[in-house]
Amino acid sequence: MTGQRADARRNYARILAVAEAEVAAHGADASLEQIARTAGVGSATVRRHFPGRRALLAAVFGERIAVLCARATALTDAPDARQALLEWLHALTAYAASARGMADALMQDGLTDPEQVQDCSTKLRAAAEPLVQRAAQAGALAPGVTAADLLTLVTGIALATEHHQDPTAEAGRLLDLTVRGVVPPR
Amino acid sequence: MTGQRADARRNYARILAVAEAEVAAHGADASLEQIARTAGVGSATVRRHFPGRRALLAAVFGERIAVLCARATALTDAPDARQALLEWLHALTAYAASARGMADALMQDGLTDPEQVQDCSTKLRAAAEPLVQRAAQAGALAPGVTAADLLTLVTGIALATEHHQDPTAEAGRLLDLTVRGVVPPR
Repeated sequence: MTGQRADARRNYARILAVAEAEVAAHGADASLEQIARTAGVGSATVRRHFPGRRALLAAVFGERIAVLCARATALTDAPDARQALLEWLHALTAYAASARGMADALMQDGLTDPEQVQDCSTKLRAAAEPLVQRAAQAGALAPGVTAADLLTLVTGIALATEHHQDPTAEAGRLLDLTVRGVVPPR
Repeated sequence: MTGQRADARRNYARILAVAEAEVAAHGADASLEQIARTAGVGSATVRRHFPGRRALLAAVFGERIAVLCARATALTDAPDARQALLEWLHALTAYAASARGMADALMQDGLTDPEQVQDCSTKLRAAAEPLVQRAAQAGALAPGVTAADLLTLVTGIALATEHHQDPTAEAGRLLDLTVRGVVPPR
C-alpha cells in the first residue's frame, strides 16, 4: 500500500511537471493524451489524478503560483536585499509573460473567473511583502513603491508584451527599464 | 453658401467635442441622440456628419490621436527637453487610461481591428520620436530607452489599471514610478 501511494505521488508529480511544460508550449490547448504519453503513463492514470483539463490547468496554475511564493519566502533570507528583490521580480515577470496567454485561454473557455485571478494576486502580494519591506529598509526601493505597485507594473509589462515575438525576453528588458527608471533625475 | 459651410464646420466641431465627452463618460455606449441633444443640433445633422456610431467613434479616436501628435510636435520646441518629454508622457498616459475602455468596447463590437490600433501606435511613435531624441540628447533619457519602449510601458500601465476605481490618477502615479525607477541604483 505504501509502495502504491509512493507510485501515485511520483506519477502525480511527473504528470504535473509534463503538464507545465505542455501548457507553456501550447497554452490551454495542451492535450491530456499527449501529457500522458510524455509522462509515460496511461490516459486513465492522468484522469485519475486530474478528472479533466480544467483540473489539470488549475493544478498547473496553482503550482506555479506556489513556486513563486516559496521563492519569495526563500529570498527574504538572502544576504543582499536589493539583489533578492530584483531576482524575484524577474522570476515574477517571466511567469507573468508566459502565464498571461494561459490565463486568457482559461478565461475564454470560461474555466476561470476574475476571483481566482484576484486570489492569485493576493497570494503573490502577501508572499512578496516581506521581501519588499526588507528591500525598502535596505534603501533598495524608491519611496512610495508598494508590493502591489510592483505586481501591477509587472502585470502591465506582461500584458503589453503579449504579442511580441519573444514576450519573456521583451518583458524582462522592460522590467530592467522600470527598475532603473526611464527618465533619470537631473 | 460660404455661411452654410461655416455653419457645417462649426456643427461638426461641436458634435465631435460633445461626442468626445460622451465617449469618455459612457464608452462605446454613448448614444447619438444624447450627443445631438447636448450639442443642440438635430439627430439628422449628427447623422449627416457621422452616418453611424462607428464613424463617430472613429472620428473621436482619430481626433484624440491627432491632438496627442500635435502636442508632441509643439513640445519638441519647448525650452526644457526633460520637462517636455514628461509632460507628453503624462498626456499620453491620461489618454491611454481613458481610451483603453473605448478601444476594448470598439473591439468587442467588431468596430475596429488590430491593424487600426497598430496604425494609431505607429502615428504616436512617429510623433514622439523627435521629442524622445531631444530628451536623449539632453541626457534626460535612460540609455537604451526608445520611443517604442515608452509607448509599450504606458500601454501596459493603462492595461493594468483599467479596473482601478480612478484609472487616470493611478496610471499617472505608476508612470511617475516608472519615470524615476522602482529600485534605485546602489
